[in-house]
Amino acid sequence: MVRAGIIGATGYAGAELVRLLLNHKDTEIRWYGSKSYIDKKYADVYGNMFRLVENVCRGDDLEELSKEADVIFTATPQGYLASILNEKILSRCRVIDLSADYRIKDVSVYEEWYKLEHKSPELIKEAVYGLCEINREKIKGARLIANPGCYTTCSILSIYPLLKEGLITKDSIIIDAKSGVSGAGRGAKVNNLYCEVNENMKAYGVLTHRHTPEIEEQLGYAAGKQMLINFTPHLVPMNRGILATEYATLVKKDGKLPTAADIRAAYEKYYKDEKFIRLLEDGVYPETRWVEGSNYVDIGFKIDERTGRVIMMGAIDNLVKGAAGQAVQNMNILFGFDEAMGLEIVPCFP
Amino acid sequence: MVRAGIIGATGYAGAELVRLLLNHKDTEIRWYGSKSYIDKKYADVYGNMFRLVENVCRGDDLEELSKEADVIFTATPQGYLASILNEKILSRCRVIDLSADYRIKDVSVYEEWYKLEHKSPELIKEAVYGLCEINREKIKGARLIANPGCYTTCSILSIYPLLKEGLITKDSIIIDAKSGVSGAGRGAKVNNLYCEVNENMKAYGVLTHRHTPEIEEQLGYAAGKQMLINFTPHLVPMNRGILATEYATLVKKDGKLPTAADIRAAYEKYYKDEKFIRLLEDGVYPETRWVEGSNYVDIGFKIDERTGRVIMMGAIDNLVKGAAGQAVQNMNILFGFDEAMGLEIVPCFP
Amino acid sequence: MVRAGIIGATGYAGAELVRLLLNHKDTEIRWYGSKSYIDKKYADVYGNMFRLVENVCRGDDLEELSKEADVIFTATPQGYLASILNEKILSRCRVIDLSADYRIKDVSVYEEWYKLEHKSPELIKEAVYGLCEINREKIKGARLIANPGCYTTCSILSIYPLLKEGLITKDSIIIDAKSGVSGAGRGAKVNNLYCEVNENMKAYGVLTHRHTPEIEEQLGYAAGKQMLINFTPHLVPMNRGILATEYATLVKKDGKLPTAADIRAAYEKYYKDEKFIRLLEDGVYPETRWVEGSNYVDIGFKIDERTGRVIMMGAIDNLVKGAAGQAVQNMNILFGFDEAMGLEIVPCFP
Amino acid sequence: MVRAGIIGATGYAGAELVRLLLNHKDTEIRWYGSKSYIDKKYADVYGNMFRLVENVCRGDDLEELSKEADVIFTATPQGYLASILNEKILSRCRVIDLSADYRIKDVSVYEEWYKLEHKSPELIKEAVYGLCEINREKIKGARLIANPGCYTTCSILSIYPLLKEGLITKDSIIIDAKSGVSGAGRGAKVNNLYCEVNENMKAYGVLTHRHTPEIEEQLGYAAGKQMLINFTPHLVPMNRGILATEYATLVKKDGKLPTAADIRAAYEKYYKDEKFIRLLEDGVYPETRWVEGSNYVDIGFKIDERTGRVIMMGAIDNLVKGAAGQAVQNMNILFGFDEAMGLEIVPCFP
Repeated sequence: MVRAGIIGATGYAGAELVRLLLNHKDTEIRWYGSKSYIDKKYADVYGNMFRLVENVCRGDDLEELSKEADVIFTATPQGYLASILNEKILSRCRVIDLSADYRIKDVSVYEEWYKLEHKSPELIKEAVYGLCEINREKIKGARLIANPGCYTTCSILSIYPLLKEGLITKDSIIIDAKSGVSGAGRGAKVNNLYCEVNENMKAYGVLTHRHTPEIEEQLGYAAGKQMLINFTPHLVPMNRGILATEYATLVKKDGKLPTAADIRAAYEKYYKDEKFIRLLEDGVYPETRWVEGSNYVDIGFKIDERTGRVIMMGAIDNLVKGAAGQAVQNMNILFGFDEAMGLEIVPCFP
Repeated sequence: MVRAGIIGATGYAGAELVRLLLNHKDTEIRWYGSKSYIDKKYADVYGNMFRLVENVCRGDDLEELSKEADVIFTATPQGYLASILNEKILSRCRVIDLSADYRIKDVSVYEEWYKLEHKSPELIKEAVYGLCEINREKIKGARLIANPGCYTTCSILSIYPLLKEGLITKDSIIIDAKSGVSGAGRGAKVNNLYCEVNENMKAYGVLTHRHTPEIEEQLGYAAGKQMLINFTPHLVPMNRGILATEYATLVKKDGKLPTAADIRAAYEKYYKDEKFIRLLEDGVYPETRWVEGSNYVDIGFKIDERTGRVIMMGAIDNLVKGAAGQAVQNMNILFGFDEAMGLEIVPCFP
Repeated sequence: MVRAGIIGATGYAGAELVRLLLNHKDTEIRWYGSKSYIDKKYADVYGNMFRLVENVCRGDDLEELSKEADVIFTATPQGYLASILNEKILSRCRVIDLSADYRIKDVSVYEEWYKLEHKSPELIKEAVYGLCEINREKIKGARLIANPGCYTTCSILSIYPLLKEGLITKDSIIIDAKSGVSGAGRGAKVNNLYCEVNENMKAYGVLTHRHTPEIEEQLGYAAGKQMLINFTPHLVPMNRGILATEYATLVKKDGKLPTAADIRAAYEKYYKDEKFIRLLEDGVYPETRWVEGSNYVDIGFKIDERTGRVIMMGAIDNLVKGAAGQAVQNMNILFGFDEAMGLEIVPCFP
Repeated sequence: MVRAGIIGATGYAGAELVRLLLNHKDTEIRWYGSKSYIDKKYADVYGNMFRLVENVCRGDDLEELSKEADVIFTATPQGYLASILNEKILSRCRVIDLSADYRIKDVSVYEEWYKLEHKSPELIKEAVYGLCEINREKIKGARLIANPGCYTTCSILSIYPLLKEGLITKDSIIIDAKSGVSGAGRGAKVNNLYCEVNENMKAYGVLTHRHTPEIEEQLGYAAGKQMLINFTPHLVPMNRGILATEYATLVKKDGKLPTAADIRAAYEKYYKDEKFIRLLEDGVYPETRWVEGSNYVDIGFKIDERTGRVIMMGAIDNLVKGAAGQAVQNMNILFGFDEAMGLEIVPCFP
C-alpha cells in the first residue's frame, strides 16, 4: 500500500486528488494538508466526502510528512514548494508537484513569467516534466515530478505529433484556449464569483499567461528549436473542461498540402497505444462534456485547403488529465502500477 | 432635475440603481459612493458603464452628500445607516434605505434577528415601509423609506390579498423561496464562487433568515394579528430572480372551499390597477425569466381540492422589484413623478 | 457474468445505466436498445463512450432480448413496457423497469394520473417496488422490479422514518421539490432548450405531477392509512440533482414537541446501516453538489419550535439513486451481489 | 408613426425585435408573423410580453403585410424571403432582412455555402449590406437591407480599420469566435437542449460556417482584394453574447511594428464618433457581460511584440447588435430618425 500525502488538499486540484486516490486500490491517503482548514474535518470542507473521509486537516510540514509518506502531492501556490523542498525530503519519498515550480528548465524564464525568485534552482535539473505520454521513460526513475499545467497538457498533446513530424511550421502556431472556472482555484476573489463569471465570456491573461513559456519549452523539444507561440486563454461559464483550438500553417511537400491521412498517421504514430488519448474520427471534434470526470484527452483536426492551415483541437478535464489525474498517472508510473489504475473512469454525462 | 446620491453604488443593488437612474429622465446621479473603490472610476468597476458614467467613486460621507442631493439611496451593510443617520440629514433630503435598518418596527425583533444593536431607534417610527402597492399613501409624505427586502416583496405581494380577505388561515403559511445568486451580493466569499454555486441547489439560512420577521410583521398587518410562518430560502444557479412558492390552508365557508374565481377576485381587488403586478391567467404560473430586468411581480395560484390548500406563487427580479426598481418607484412617489418613470422596461428574454 | 440488456439505452437514464454497468465487474451489457438510433454506433450518440463501447444500437424486441439476457432494464416511455411484457419474458429473465408502469398497485390510480390504459394489469401485483432500503427483502425473490421515480425516491426516503414512527401528522406533509433538467429526458422539446431553462426557475406540473400518487401510496404504507400530500416540482438550471424540501407538523407528546435527538433516532432506526443514506450532522443540510454522480441520499432536518413543524430535506442525483443507480442496486440484490457493487462512486465536485 | 411588421416574430431574433420596438417611440408593431403559432396570443408564446402585447400571431403573407406596413422585418429561415420577395412589395415598403438571403453579392457563393438555389437573384444587387457604421450612407436610400450576421458584425467591426489602414496582412487573419446559445435559434433540436449545451464547450461548423464568405466579402472591400480567412465558431453555455478573438500578422513599416498608438489611431479614425462602438482602454479586453442587452460593440486589442501579431477582440450581444438592434438601427437610418432611437439601453449586469 503506497502511503500518500497531499499538501493543498482543500483546493480544487487537491480535492480531485482525494476523489481519485479514494478509488485507487493500492494507495492510502495519510495526510490531508491544508493551511486554511487545519484541525478541521476534511469532510466539513468538502461535503461529498462525508462518511468517506474521516480525517482532519493537517498543516504543511513537508519534513514531517516525508517520514510518513511514500509519495507527496503538492497542490500549492507558485513558489511555495521551491521554498521548502530539499534533498532530505527527496531522499525519503517521491514528490509530485502540481504547481509550476519545477516545470521550466531555464530558471530565468520562470522568474520572469512568475515574478518570483526561485528558492531551489538546484533541483530543477533533476525534475522530470510529467507529461506521461511523452516522457514516460524518464518519469520511471524520477524523484521529483513537475506535473504539467492544464492548458499545457491539452495544447502540447494535440500539437506535438504534427510538429515533431514536421507537418506544421513552427512560427505559425496560435492556441486559442477555453477553460472552465475550476482552473481558477477556490480562492475567494470577486472575479470568480458566480455572477461575474456566469453569462459571460472573456479572454484573460492576454500575452501574459504563465502557461505560455511552458508550452513553448515543451513544443521546442518537439521542434528541435526555440518556439514562439500565441496563447490566449478564455474563461467559460462551466465548472470543468478545457478546449484548445489551435491553428498552424501546414508544410507543403512537393507543392502539396499534407492530407487528412497524413495528419492522422502522425497522431497515431505517437498515440495509437495510448489508453488516455482518443483520436476522434474524421469530422468529429472534441467537446469537453465527453471527457468530464475522466483522464481522457480527445483530439480532432481539420485541414483547410483554402488557407493551407490545419485546425487542431484538444479537450480535457482540467482537474483530471490537467491536474490530479495526470498526477496519479505519474504516481502509477513511478511505483510500477498499471498506468491506468484508479483512472479507469467512464466520463460522466450529462 | 432631482439630484440623487447612492451610498454603496458598487454592490449589485447599487449598480442596478445606476442602471435604472440613467434611464430616468428627471434624475441625475451626483454621487457614486463606494468605500472599497474610492477615487476609482465607476466604469472601471462596472464595465457596462464605460462611456455612460464618467464619475469617480466617492466615499460615504452622508452629511456632505446630504448637501448635494435631494434623495439618497443607501445600499449598505446592515446597521451602517442606523449608525450615521440623523435629523439634520433627514431635514435636508429624502433617504431611501435598501438595507433592513428601518424595516422592522419592534427594535428588539430587529436586534434579535440581526444580532446588532440599533443605533438610531428613534427614527424607526417615522420610517415608512416602502412596499409601494400596499403603502403608497404613507410613502407620499415620508422622509425616510425602508425599502423592502427581495424575498419579502415577492412573498408579501403574492400572499397579502388572500390573507387580508380571510381566504387562508394565518397559521398555515409556508413559504419556500428560491433566489438567484445576485441576492448574495458582490462580496468575495468562497460560498458564492462560481464552482460552488453552479450545478448545485441548496437551502440556506434555514429558520434563521432575516427576512422572516419582516414578512411576519407585514403579513401581520394584513391578518390583524401576529403571524408565525415558515420561510425557507434556497440558492439557485442563476444570476437574477426570485420565485416564491407558498402554501396555505384555505378557509371554508359554509363547508365549501373558495373557488378559483374567489381567489382571483381577491387579488384583483387589490391589484387590478397596479401597473407592476401581473396576475397570470389560470393554469399559468410565474417564471423568473419572464420578469428579468423589469419591475414586474408575476403572480399565479392553484387550488388543491384534495388537500384544501392553495398554492400561491410569485416571481420578481430580485435586483429590480426586489431592490433598486422598488427604490426608484418609491422615489417617484416621493417626488410626485409618474410612478413608472424609468421603470417601463420590457423584460429581457432570453 | 450477468448478461444485461437495456431498452431505451440512448435516453439519459439509459446512458447512465451504461456508465454504471461498465463499472460493474460482474455484468456485461449485451444489448443497447434504442428505437431512434437503431444500427447507429452507440458511441456516436454518446461521445463519452468512444472507445469504451463498440456496440451498435439494436431495437426493442423484448422477446428476442429475453433469450440473450439475464436481466433487462427498461427505460422507456410510460405505457410501453406494460404493452409488451408477458409471462414468457418474465420466465426467462428478470426485468427492472425504470418507467412507472408497475409502480402503482391500484391500476385505476395509474390510469387516472397517466391518462393511459394499462395493458398488463395482471402483472402489477407481483411487481415489487424497488426502493431498496425499504423493500430489500421483497426485492430478493422478485421477477419484476418497479424502479421508483426520482422525486419519489428522494421524498419517501427523507420522510419515511418520521411518518412510520408517528412523529409527524399524516395530513400536514408538503413537498417542495427541485430538479435538474436531465430529469426531463432527452426529447427535443422547446421547453427544454438551453435558453428556455437557463437563467430561469419555475414550478411545473402543479398538482398534476405523476409522482404524487406514487409518493402517497408508499408513504401510505408507512402511515398505515391513505395519504394526501402536496407535491410541487420545480425546474432548476442544472444538469443533475434533486433537492426536496419537506414540511410537516410534529406530533406533540405530553404537550411537548419531539427533540432533534428524537428525530435523529427515528432516522437512525431505519438507516443506520444503510450504505447509501447519509444522515447529515445537525445544522448541515443537503446540497445536490455533494451527491453528484453517486448513489447517495443525503438527509437533513430542522425543527421549528415556533411553528411546531419539522423541515426535512433530501438530496440525490436524479440519474443515479433516482434512476440508474437504484436500478443497479436492485440488480445487485436480485443476483446476490454485494449491494454496492459498481456503485461505490465518490461524488464528483465541482 | 412608422408601421412595422415582423415575419418570424416568435424566433429569438424576432422576439428581440419586439422588445426593442416596444421601446421605440415612433414605431408601432402591426403584424406579429409566426407560422408555428398562428392565431395564438403572442404573449402566450413569450410570457415576458404578458400585458404588453395583446396581439395574436398572424401568418407570413408578405403581400398582405406590405399593404399595412411601412417597414417589414424578416427573421426567417434561409431562402424563404428570397422565394417570396418581389418588386411590388419593395415598391410599397422597406424590407429589413435578418436572414442571409441578400447579404452575399455573388449568388454562386451564396448557393454554394447555403446549399440553396436563390429564387430572386435579381434583387441582390440593390440590397444594401446593413452594417450601419460602415455603410451608413448607402443605407439611407435603400429599399432592401441585408442585415448582417451576428458573428459577421462582431468580426468585421473589430478588424475593419486595421485592414483598411494596411496595418495587418490580409492572408493572416484567424477568427476564433464564441457564441451564446440563442444564436442557434428556438428550434427544438437535441443539440440545443439544456443538458447538451450546459457544462460543455465545443467548436462547430468547422470550416463550413456560413458566416465565413460573408466576412470574407466585407473584409475584402476593406482590403481591396479577395480574402481568405479562418473562422471557427464555438458554442458557449450562456444565453447571449459573442466574443471574437482575432489574430493577424502586423505589417512592419521601416522594419518596425506598428505601436499601440498606431492601432488605436486606426480604430479612432473610423469609430471615434460612433455611439455604439466602444474602443476600450489599453489593457482592457471585451467581455460579453458588459454589452448584454445593448447595441454596443466593445473592441480591444493587444500587440504581441514577440510574434509580430496583433490580437483583436470584439464583443456584442448577438441578439441586439448582432440581429434585432442593428435592424432597428437600420430602420432609424432609413426613416431619418435619430440613429440611436429605441437603442439607448444601458447594458444589464449581472
